[in-house]
Amino acid sequence: MSWSNIASTACPIARSLAIVGDRWTLLVLRELFLKQHRFEDIQAQTGMSPHLLSMRLKRLEKDGIIRRETYNQRPVRHGYRLTEKGKDLYPVLLALKAWGERWDRGSGTREPAVMLIHRQCGHPTGMALACPSCGGHFGLGDVEVKLSPFFTREREERRKAFKARRSPS
Amino acid sequence: MSWSNIASTACPIARSLAIVGDRWTLLVLRELFLKQHRFEDIQAQTGMSPHLLSMRLKRLEKDGIIRRETYNQRPVRHGYRLTEKGKDLYPVLLALKAWGERWDRGSGTREPAVMLIHRQCGHPTGMALACPSCGGHFGLGDVEVKLSPFFTREREERRKAFKARRSPS
Repeated sequence: MSWSNIASTACPIARSLAIVGDRWTLLVLRELFLKQHRFEDIQAQTGMSPHLLSMRLKRLEKDGIIRRETYNQRPVRHGYRLTEKGKDLYPVLLALKAWGERWDRGSGTREPAVMLIHRQCGHPTGMALACPSCGGHFGLGDVEVKLSPFFTREREERRKAFKARRSPS
Repeated sequence: MSWSNIASTACPIARSLAIVGDRWTLLVLRELFLKQHRFEDIQAQTGMSPHLLSMRLKRLEKDGIIRRETYNQRPVRHGYRLTEKGKDLYPVLLALKAWGERWDRGSGTREPAVMLIHRQCGHPTGMALACPSCGGHFGLGDVEVKLSPFFTREREERRKAFKARRSPS
């Protein structure tokens, strides 16, 4: 698969990764979720070079994940805000946070770096999965996976093309 | 921030990204969740070069996310399985799937490429967030964010170091 030719796959994971599957991009999104909206603030917290950060912000803007806002006229200063499409990436960052907290605690971090308090119940919240249909919990073992005919065909074609490349007749 | 010096941050998102924040790695994980365990099958479905795939698998094994299993003795053939740590990345992939389905449907994909059926209720399931404390739904707007003193200090130090680099006295 080529990431520039990503539109050809039916897989939503691959398509998402083509857009946000880069750790710098996800680190920029972390800062936006932490309400850092200015170029310099994002740069300071990510350690990115101005060139790299500028490229990532442009790409995020082009993909409709952030929008640029003017917060000062003289001199002109821009800030960056998450759009609805961008805000909808929240579960991706939550899932990375939960996994990091569980499996890679780092040094000197006995307490969670960022605590999320659920306003409705007042207690710490985080990543738990609920079934949108019944509201019950579900996990990896509780689902039956069904590939669509289109995606099944796509995968079968990839398998055949791969075999043909490896053993040319 | 340097990704090789990632242990110095208290942020679990950054630490997770240092390990799995690469789209090839996440695509390999997609295949393992789809029960493709053999090198060639993963290669066929991701289009990765043998060298690239081999590097990513080695890194995943080193990080304890997958383990190598011998499934054939003569000739020796290895397969790759997700460990508990690896299986726990399920919500990350689910979140990417949900976002891709909502925001980037691709072409020719009127139906979801992969449908997940919740065994307990028999209906399609997917990404919904539940609060681990009260079980209720929560989203971006329902949480109060509290940075730990340690992480607050880390961020403040980064901000100061950045300012000092920019305007040396």
